[in-house]
Amino acid sequence: MYKVLRKHLERVIEISDQEFDEFCSLLVLRKLRRKELLIRPGDRVTSEFYVVSGCLQAFHTSENGDQSILQFGIEDWWVSDFEAFFNDTPARLSVSCIEDSTVLELNKEMLEELYKRIPKFERFFRIKLTKAFVALYSRIQNGLEKNSTTRYLEFCETYPHIEQRVPNYKIASYLGIKPESLSRIRKELAEKEASINKA
Amino acid sequence: MYKVLRKHLERVIEISDQEFDEFCSLLVLRKLRRKELLIRPGDRVTSEFYVVSGCLQAFHTSENGDQSILQFGIEDWWVSDFEAFFNDTPARLSVSCIEDSTVLELNKEMLEELYKRIPKFERFFRIKLTKAFVALYSRIQNGLEKNSTTRYLEFCETYPHIEQRVPNYKIASYLGIKPESLSRIRKELAEKEASINKA
Repeated sequence: MYKVLRKHLERVIEISDQEFDEFCSLLVLRKLRRKELLIRPGDRVTSEFYVVSGCLQAFHTSENGDQSILQFGIEDWWVSDFEAFFNDTPARLSVSCIEDSTVLELNKEMLEELYKRIPKFERFFRIKLTKAFVALYSRIQNGLEKNSTTRYLEFCETYPHIEQRVPNYKIASYLGIKPESLSRIRKELAEKEASINKA
Repeated sequence: MYKVLRKHLERVIEISDQEFDEFCSLLVLRKLRRKELLIRPGDRVTSEFYVVSGCLQAFHTSENGDQSILQFGIEDWWVSDFEAFFNDTPARLSVSCIEDSTVLELNKEMLEELYKRIPKFERFFRIKLTKAFVALYSRIQNGLEKNSTTRYLEFCETYPHIEQRVPNYKIASYLGIKPESLSRIRKELAEKEASINKA
């Protein structure tokens, strides 16, 4: 488990065994059950979570109970309510498990302390944050620019194999389209593939 | 002009005169005319721009010529096509001036070099990026959660007095609503204010 995490860090920074041990000493291993809630609206959010296994969702619930999914968290991703986490404001989102999941919890204050002791971790999280920022920025742009089919295909690239793990209506919610539209898109893509295989 | 920039930095980090001078030595002053384009779709984007005065917009143009505004840049803000800037991909946005503007151009490679010499600037830009990330994240959440009137009022807080500087249809575009809806919202708010003043 920690091997994957080390790889995750070393894609961005070089670290020694001792530095890695120090980072790991901050983490709390949590085993969660399917449907378990990790964050509730109104919570104070002092941690972010590295997904070791399983699948989580961060979603917003409207007054009439409709849920809109902002983020999925699969293996090797970080999840939280990032607005609440960074701004120290009450959570507006829920984060819950779509599957039984194992996460490593990282506390914000402990991380700030670590930045002082080993500044390269500040570098790591700056670069991760840059990627997350660009991903959100692109998502807004894609909504303006690309049709639903293109956005679905890009989604499948971003979250490999997730379409086998997450119900249709949740993916539609993330993409901001109706479940019927997603079914139509999938059918069209399957027909296209079939006709290519036939040819 | 550099006094405002120094304050901008010192809201986040403490810096010496020498460190400030070194930061300023990286900046290129650019005076731009109204309607001038700073970034075009397809451009390689190697800089971000600190707005000293004036007002800029980052926008997407669809195939049929419709423009959608992603960001305004007023005094004390940074603008760019951040996807292209961080990812080294061709620009998908345009950035242009709504008013005559003065900006300070900061080159990415030079900034990376500065991080190595004075790591506290890495801290500054990590914290700025965190705020930008949260702002985008909140914007997506607000779109799910809040009605157009609330979003307009929050927009006016984020960009003080911008409604006197930017045409109605551009603000509507930023908020993702029709210009007619924004006119109606403004009228309702004005009537509300008038009735409060009368009472």
